[in-house]
Amino acid sequence: MELLKDYILNNGKTIGSKILKVDSFLNHQIDPVLMMKMGEEFKKRFEGVEINKILTIEASGIAIGLAAAYALNVPLVFAKKKVPSTMSDFYTTKVFSFTKNQEYTICVGKDFLQPEDKVLIIDDFLAMGNAVLGLKELVEMAGAKVMGAGIAVTKGFQGGEKLLQDNGIRVESLAVVDSLENGEINFR
Amino acid sequence: MELLKDYILNNGKTIGSKILKVDSFLNHQIDPVLMMKMGEEFKKRFEGVEINKILTIEASGIAIGLAAAYALNVPLVFAKKKVPSTMSDFYTTKVFSFTKNQEYTICVGKDFLQPEDKVLIIDDFLAMGNAVLGLKELVEMAGAKVMGAGIAVTKGFQGGEKLLQDNGIRVESLAVVDSLENGEINFR
Repeated sequence: MELLKDYILNNGKTIGSKILKVDSFLNHQIDPVLMMKMGEEFKKRFEGVEINKILTIEASGIAIGLAAAYALNVPLVFAKKKVPSTMSDFYTTKVFSFTKNQEYTICVGKDFLQPEDKVLIIDDFLAMGNAVLGLKELVEMAGAKVMGAGIAVTKGFQGGEKLLQDNGIRVESLAVVDSLENGEINFR
Repeated sequence: MELLKDYILNNGKTIGSKILKVDSFLNHQIDPVLMMKMGEEFKKRFEGVEINKILTIEASGIAIGLAAAYALNVPLVFAKKKVPSTMSDFYTTKVFSFTKNQEYTICVGKDFLQPEDKVLIIDDFLAMGNAVLGLKELVEMAGAKVMGAGIAVTKGFQGGEKLLQDNGIRVESLAVVDSLENGEINFR
């Protein structure tokens, strides 16, 4: 998606050869117009695919998840990283974050994933792919089906895209960064 | 806002006389059409007020924050509850949560709050008011100004609204719940 690539080139910052900071428009400060346009782009990419729910993960998936949900006119569910004290019945699994080098728990209330659901997973970043695989697990615990994964920015050099494809998930990325060597952002 | 009240009456659940669960449409599963309409309503309520930025707090403020930011055509910034490892320069303060009976830290990168900013604070729930006061502190650390607070659901029996007004903040709530006695939801 050219608009997103322009934002990344104009506003993204690299730290070393692994980290791309996009916190001025994507995951700390958010440009709402860009966000809603990304939602529209996911709608186009998944045209013809039966989808009745968007699933993402707090916190930075929520904005792009809402944009996709609004474009597709389906509910958004976001997995929580802590079990709320008022929630009694939920699906849960563990996800290992390589970025933070720690394991965390994600959960979704059982009311919000039903066996008949056709779920599109949305997230802002794809690196190693573990978060999306964790979300897929929750969907499958409910007997529901993952119809694909829509990602804003995929780091093409970190293996997550292939891992998801090997697990049978169709991945649509709005921008794939293939390298960040010497502070230079190279798209696929 | 009648539409939100209808959602609360039809889909909200009470636990005891203090807790109102709206997780089927507001803060776990999200109805994107309702959300965007609430954004439009905030635009109406703050008509004529100079606002160039929305500030909210992760995670459940993000969706409604984005809706408001889109309606007002200004950027959204969400305060984080953990300091990201890639962020070096930020404003931070502590907030005590009565719901969870614990203190937590909130922070915003210094790049995203500027002295000239006119900030509208948005959140999904207003109970005791501490989260909004914490956000106000961050805004004022940057030398910027809080122009008001837009809240989806205010629990009118928990004192937060008065606390914010006593601190000079104009509060606009889309629904004010004045009591939850005997499982009955009573609006102001």
